[in-house]
Amino acid sequence: MRHYTHIKDLGVAGQQKLLKLAADYKRAEPGPILKNKVLGMLFFNPSLRTRTSFEVAMMKLGGQAVALEEGSGVWKLETEDGAPMNGDKAEHVREAAAVLSRYVDVLGVRAFSRGMGQADDDSDRVINSFRQHAHVPMVSLESAREHPCQGLADMLTIRESFGQTQGVNVVLSWAPHVKPLPKAVPNSVLLHAAAAGCSITVAHPPGFELGGPVREEAAQYAAQSGARIRYTHDQREALNGAHVVYAKAWGPEPRQSEDGIVASPALRGWMPTLKHFEACTDDAIFLHCLPVRRDVEVGSDVLDSERSRVIDEAENRMWVQMAALAWLFERA
Amino acid sequence: MRHYTHIKDLGVAGQQKLLKLAADYKRAEPGPILKNKVLGMLFFNPSLRTRTSFEVAMMKLGGQAVALEEGSGVWKLETEDGAPMNGDKAEHVREAAAVLSRYVDVLGVRAFSRGMGQADDDSDRVINSFRQHAHVPMVSLESAREHPCQGLADMLTIRESFGQTQGVNVVLSWAPHVKPLPKAVPNSVLLHAAAAGCSITVAHPPGFELGGPVREEAAQYAAQSGARIRYTHDQREALNGAHVVYAKAWGPEPRQSEDGIVASPALRGWMPTLKHFEACTDDAIFLHCLPVRRDVEVGSDVLDSERSRVIDEAENRMWVQMAALAWLFERA
Amino acid sequence: MRHYTHIKDLGVAGQQKLLKLAADYKRAEPGPILKNKVLGMLFFNPSLRTRTSFEVAMMKLGGQAVALEEGSGVWKLETEDGAPMNGDKAEHVREAAAVLSRYVDVLGVRAFSRGMGQADDDSDRVINSFRQHAHVPMVSLESAREHPCQGLADMLTIRESFGQTQGVNVVLSWAPHVKPLPKAVPNSVLLHAAAAGCSITVAHPPGFELGGPVREEAAQYAAQSGARIRYTHDQREALNGAHVVYAKAWGPEPRQSEDGIVASPALRGWMPTLKHFEACTDDAIFLHCLPVRRDVEVGSDVLDSERSRVIDEAENRMWVQMAALAWLFERA
Repeated sequence: MRHYTHIKDLGVAGQQKLLKLAADYKRAEPGPILKNKVLGMLFFNPSLRTRTSFEVAMMKLGGQAVALEEGSGVWKLETEDGAPMNGDKAEHVREAAAVLSRYVDVLGVRAFSRGMGQADDDSDRVINSFRQHAHVPMVSLESAREHPCQGLADMLTIRESFGQTQGVNVVLSWAPHVKPLPKAVPNSVLLHAAAAGCSITVAHPPGFELGGPVREEAAQYAAQSGARIRYTHDQREALNGAHVVYAKAWGPEPRQSEDGIVASPALRGWMPTLKHFEACTDDAIFLHCLPVRRDVEVGSDVLDSERSRVIDEAENRMWVQMAALAWLFERA
Repeated sequence: MRHYTHIKDLGVAGQQKLLKLAADYKRAEPGPILKNKVLGMLFFNPSLRTRTSFEVAMMKLGGQAVALEEGSGVWKLETEDGAPMNGDKAEHVREAAAVLSRYVDVLGVRAFSRGMGQADDDSDRVINSFRQHAHVPMVSLESAREHPCQGLADMLTIRESFGQTQGVNVVLSWAPHVKPLPKAVPNSVLLHAAAAGCSITVAHPPGFELGGPVREEAAQYAAQSGARIRYTHDQREALNGAHVVYAKAWGPEPRQSEDGIVASPALRGWMPTLKHFEACTDDAIFLHCLPVRRDVEVGSDVLDSERSRVIDEAENRMWVQMAALAWLFERA
Repeated sequence: MRHYTHIKDLGVAGQQKLLKLAADYKRAEPGPILKNKVLGMLFFNPSLRTRTSFEVAMMKLGGQAVALEEGSGVWKLETEDGAPMNGDKAEHVREAAAVLSRYVDVLGVRAFSRGMGQADDDSDRVINSFRQHAHVPMVSLESAREHPCQGLADMLTIRESFGQTQGVNVVLSWAPHVKPLPKAVPNSVLLHAAAAGCSITVAHPPGFELGGPVREEAAQYAAQSGARIRYTHDQREALNGAHVVYAKAWGPEPRQSEDGIVASPALRGWMPTLKHFEACTDDAIFLHCLPVRRDVEVGSDVLDSERSRVIDEAENRMWVQMAALAWLFERA
C-alpha cells in the first residue's frame, strides 16, 4: 500500500513521475478516475489552501472529501502510545485511524510541529502514528517535518517558469516573522529541490539552521539528481544569479525565540523587497507557500509584482495533489 | 464577469429577471446546469440558512460547495490594504481571494458589519476587497451593507402571496432586540421592495434611521419602478392597510446603544403581535429574515399564526440563490 | 412519515428487518437508491464516527450530506418552548427545524444529555423538539436517552460473530472513567439486546442504575423477543459464560459524581482486562462504542487483542445507517 506523507515515499524518480502527471492533468483533466472514492481529511491545525484544494481535487477526480477538525467538531485525540488518558483527550489515534480506515479510501492528516524541538519534529510522531494504525493510503496535509504536497507544487511552478528544474538556481531565503514558525515548508523546499536537481542555496541568519537529518536526506537526493546544495548566512551573496527566490519564515528553536531573536530589528533586512532582486537573473521569480504576512515576511512590492508566482504556486497544489491521489490508488 | 454582492449588480430589470427565474426553478428544477462547478463559501460569521441553502442549491444544480469558516478552520484574514500584519491575522485577502479563485468557480463571502458606523458599513470593505481581488464571480452571503439574496427571497415570497410585487403595501417595521443589530437586512428589504415597485413604509423610532446612501439608492429604484417610499415614526399609522408586515431589529449606532436605547421599555410596544395586524388587510402576511428571538423581537402568536410566511421565505432563499448562481454563469 | 430517533420507532420486528438489510448492504452495496437526497446533520456535540459514517453512507447511497455545528458555524438554538430569548440563543428550534426541513430530505440531530438528571434525559427534549417541528424524517445522531444507530451496529456485530443474536450471553459491564458520562449508549445496548433476544446481564456498582423507564421498555421487548434480562452488582459472576463483554462508562447522577464516586479507587477493578475474560466462553468478544480511554475505561490488552471487535463495530455504524436511511425513505 502506498502512502505520501514524506518525500522518501516517492524518491527521486517518483517525484519526477508525479510532476509529469500533474502537468498532464493541468493541461487536460483526467476525468472521474477516482469515482466514488472518499478522502477523509483530519485537521489538527487551520487550513485554507490545503482543505479547499484537496476537496476540489477529489471532486475533479469524481470522488468526494470529508473534512474533520480535531478538537472542534471532533474528539481530541491522543497520539502517544501508553499515555495516561485521564486528561482532555477522549480517543486514541489507534482507534481513530483504524475506524476512519473503514469509512474512507484515503486518509489525510494535518499535524503541525508541537514545538518540542528538532528531534520531536523529525520523529513526526502524529502523522507517523496515523500511518502506523491506518489501513488505507495516507497523504500528508503538512506535518511537523514536511509539507510534501507543497514541495511538489513548488517544483511544478519552477518547471512551468523555466521548462525544467535541473540546474535552476533556487535560493531558499529565511524571512522575519512575528513568531517562530515550524520548518516543514523549508524542509520540503530543500528536499524537493534536491530531488529535482536544482542548484540550491539556503540562506539564513546564524541560529536558524535546518535540522541535520533533513540536510542529510537532501544530500542523498542531490547525489542522485545532480543537485548542488550550499548553506550561507550571507543573503546578498546568495541572491546573486538566482532564478528563484523562495522566502519563508522559520524557527528558531522555541527557547531562542524567547530571547527575542525572531523579533530582532537586525534581522528585518532579510525581508525580500524588489531591491533584493537586483542581483538575480532578469527572469527571476518569487515563491512563497502562503499564508504570508505582507511587509513583515515579504515586501508588498514583491508580492504585487510580476515576479511573484505565489498564486500559480497555490493553484499547483491542486494539480500535484490530483496526481498524488491518483498515484496512491494505482496499486491500492 | 458578473457578481451579485449588491442589488445594483442587478438593477430593476435584473431583479425581475431573477425573480421569474427563481419562480420557474421552484415549479420545475432545472437539473444539472452547473455540473462540476464548485461554490466556495467563506464565513466570517455564523450561518444556518445561508450555508445550508447554498450547499443544497449547488447540489440541485449538479455542482458542489465547499464551506470555510474564517478564524476557526481557516487562517484569520486581513482585509485592509497596508495594515501592519503583525497581529493575529495570518493572511491578506489579496492572496486569499486570488488563491480561492484558482480552486472554485464562484466565491461567496459572509462578512457582517464591523460595528464601525454607517460610513464603514456603506463602504462594505470586506466583501468589496474580495470582489476586487477575486478572479471569479462573487456572491454575497450577507455583508455590512446588504443581504441581497435575502432581499430577493423576500420579493419572491410577496409575489407568491399577492401574484405580484407592484403596488403591494409593505411595512418595514423596526423591532426591539437585546443588542444593536446591523442594517444589512433592512437595507435590502428597502432596496428590493423599491426595485420591485412596492408601496413601502419604513417605520422606526427616532434614532434608528437607515443610512442616507441606501435611502437615496432606493429612491432611484422607485423612480424607475413606480414604487412609493415613506418614512415614519408612527408604527400604528404605518400598519394601516398593510399587505406585508416585515419586522426586523436594527441599530441604533453603537454609541447610542450604550445609552440604553435598544433596551428601552418604551420601545417594547414595537414588537409585532397579532393585535398589530388589526388595521392591516385581511390577507396581510408577516415576514422576517430569521433568526428571530421569539417574544423579544416578534410575538410568538404572530410566528405561529397563518399570517407568518417566514418558513416559505427561508425556503425561497434556496430558489433565488439557484437563480442567482445560474445568472452568474450565464456569461462567465 | 418515519423517524428513527428511538428504538421504539422500529420495534422488535423492525429492528430485525434493518439488521438484515444492513447485512445485505454490507455484502453488496445497493447503489444510488437515494440519488439527489440530502441529509442535514446538526451537531450540538463533537463527533468522529457518526459524522464520517453518515456522510459516507449518504455518498454510497447516491446522496449527499451537509454537516452543521451548533454554536460554532451555526447560531445557538433555543429548544425550550416559551423560554425568554434574551440570552445567547439567537434562534428557536421551531424555526430552525422547519427551515431545515425545506432544504434537506432527512434531518439528523446530535444532542447529548444536558446533565439535568434522569427525568430530563428520558424526556429527550432537544431531539424530540426537533422531531415535533421538522417536516422531514429524522434520525438520531445520539441524544440524551438513546444512541439508536449504535445499538443497531452492536447487534449487527454480535450477529456477525455468533450467526444470530437470539440467546447470546451479553454482559453490559459498567466501566470507570474520569467523569460521569451520559447513559444513551448503555440504554441503547440494553434496549437493542432486549429486542434482539439476547440473554443480557447488566453489571454495575451500586448507584449506577440505569433509568426505570428504559428498564421497563427493555422488559417489554424481552417479553416479545424471548430475551432474558438481569441486573447485578457482581461483575465477576456476570462474566461467567459471557459471549459478549460490552464495556461502557456511565453515570452516576451529577450530584453523586461530586462526591467522588466516579473516581473512587475501589471501582478501578471494573476496568476490563484480558484477565476478566477467563470465565467467559472461549470465543467471547469485546465491544465498546468508542471513543474509549485506554487503560482508564478498558485495558489496552483487551483493545489490542483478537477478542476486540470495536473496529468492526464502528464500521457497522455505516452499514446500519445506510439501512436506516433507506428505511426512512421507503414510505416518505
